[in-house]
Amino acid sequence: MKLIKQGNPSDVEEHPAIFPRILGHEAIGVVESLGENVFEVKEGDVVIPTFLSDCQECTECKSEKGNLCSKLPFKVSPWMPRDQTSRFKDANGEVLYHFLSVSSFSEYTVVDVAHVTKIDPSVPPNKACLLSCGISTGVGAACKLAMVEAGSTVVIFGIGGIGLAVAEASRLCGAIRIIGVDLCPEKFEIGKKFGLTDFINPKECGTKPISEVINEITGVGADYCFECIGSTSLLQEAFACCRKGWGKIIVIGVNKPGAELGISSYDILHSGITLMGSLFGGIKAKTDIPALLQRYIDKELNLDDFVTHELRFEDINEALELINDGKCIRCVVWMDK
Amino acid sequence: MKLIKQGNPSDVEEHPAIFPRILGHEAIGVVESLGENVFEVKEGDVVIPTFLSDCQECTECKSEKGNLCSKLPFKVSPWMPRDQTSRFKDANGEVLYHFLSVSSFSEYTVVDVAHVTKIDPSVPPNKACLLSCGISTGVGAACKLAMVEAGSTVVIFGIGGIGLAVAEASRLCGAIRIIGVDLCPEKFEIGKKFGLTDFINPKECGTKPISEVINEITGVGADYCFECIGSTSLLQEAFACCRKGWGKIIVIGVNKPGAELGISSYDILHSGITLMGSLFGGIKAKTDIPALLQRYIDKELNLDDFVTHELRFEDINEALELINDGKCIRCVVWMDK
Repeated sequence: MKLIKQGNPSDVEEHPAIFPRILGHEAIGVVESLGENVFEVKEGDVVIPTFLSDCQECTECKSEKGNLCSKLPFKVSPWMPRDQTSRFKDANGEVLYHFLSVSSFSEYTVVDVAHVTKIDPSVPPNKACLLSCGISTGVGAACKLAMVEAGSTVVIFGIGGIGLAVAEASRLCGAIRIIGVDLCPEKFEIGKKFGLTDFINPKECGTKPISEVINEITGVGADYCFECIGSTSLLQEAFACCRKGWGKIIVIGVNKPGAELGISSYDILHSGITLMGSLFGGIKAKTDIPALLQRYIDKELNLDDFVTHELRFEDINEALELINDGKCIRCVVWMDK
Repeated sequence: MKLIKQGNPSDVEEHPAIFPRILGHEAIGVVESLGENVFEVKEGDVVIPTFLSDCQECTECKSEKGNLCSKLPFKVSPWMPRDQTSRFKDANGEVLYHFLSVSSFSEYTVVDVAHVTKIDPSVPPNKACLLSCGISTGVGAACKLAMVEAGSTVVIFGIGGIGLAVAEASRLCGAIRIIGVDLCPEKFEIGKKFGLTDFINPKECGTKPISEVINEITGVGADYCFECIGSTSLLQEAFACCRKGWGKIIVIGVNKPGAELGISSYDILHSGITLMGSLFGGIKAKTDIPALLQRYIDKELNLDDFVTHELRFEDINEALELINDGKCIRCVVWMDK
């Protein structure tokens, strides 16, 4: 496909919500054709695209720690990451921008090889695709970042797909109490399939802060608190119910840029609590995604119950409504072939 | 000594700066007499008092993680911790308050057994006393909290006794670059004895932020940033020069209660940086202090060079002036016998 370059890329960088654009960043696909010097995958390979790259060449990708590739660093870029150009154009030949290096709301897309992971093609695609972002993020946050220990207590603020993935991973790590916090009471029944042992609906707490309810349940606070919403007040609640001495708060929800943590350094010091966060749950795509899929094949990791709806692409607005209404955990949308 | 109880303890709890009071919390001493049911030490034992208790009975003290005893939790209390009474009175029989459960600016003090650690009496007291708070805090922050790895890069904001102890511990852990930041240029020469390899005087940076200088030196930021001052702006500088992906910021300096961390959750999430803090550097007094002393005896841990001045108690104001003037790393003050 002919390269299309338009305007000054730095202008566009500063306006990442630029349109027209092909959105979508969680997907699975089959390699249709290869660019020059691409040897890692071949035509026909089943691959999972990821918004974080894993170039396997830079210091960060070669390290066992961290997952922030420095060769193709994370950006909500409207371009292909390696050369800051677009590979898409509309019927009139006008440029269409990329999104998160994936742009999966399309029958065909162009993705840098550093952003795709070859997977075992025997795994059903409507399950494997879950590891493209959300579920990997939740599992990684619990297993790789927080390193949830057996016998521990976990609180999860926000029981969407990521929150449930945190529960599932905490269960796998041997947590004995996994408390979900969500405004939608139906989430408890779904959550039990992923290890939730307790559920708090803030609407039913009256004037009592959520943290107080959690402290009553746990006695001493939770060893791990996962904030999956992106809210300063929920981070403060997490802090107020996190185990003093060794508790960890894991920031997963995306708050507005600049929004304060809402926790003071004095309190961090006196509490001995650790605050951590990482994009994609610390997952290194090309090593961790195949390993997680293997755990699914081995019937350890529950991926099946995440998918509550399947729709065709022309019904994507219905999918968005289901999500907005809190009725959907995860919806797989199929492209027309 | 007769127990003295005065007023409503909770009134006093809310006013922890209450006087008259016996200050001082870093010390070494000899057990003169024992209270009831104290079997852990005997008369004549050399002990180090600590502001954090280690009761060895509660879940926290029995755990290998954390160091916040829940039986006698940390308070800047004006009382003995176990029964909220005072053991001191002045010549007129009026109550004198305690300080941090130690009150060491006195020839004799009364300390709960959970707040004393028996040590090897062969270690010179003017060296062993350093482990009562500051030096243990710095060493613990690097070795136990941050767990500095061999080959890593460290930045220390504030090269006082604690900052030097962080340097010393980082050196022991195998850090290859240890950068000190301090307004007093003489600190570099002293710091070299504790492993400092680089030094930044913010006064000499012009308009360039300290973080920019550190990023120029390190190329990619420091793996570990220790903030030993208690300043929101320095925490922000630490964040700006901390290694993305896996860097750790360790909060050691005591800022005002409520002072913001000055770092947003969005940035924590996108940087993959971990924020941690703990009183006393995570040190569990009764296990860790004897182990640190052994490392001194084995000539691994440098305690000798911390002591830059020794004065008698009647000259304590001179000691305070030396500290205020930044001329003193650590001053040992001797009681009259």
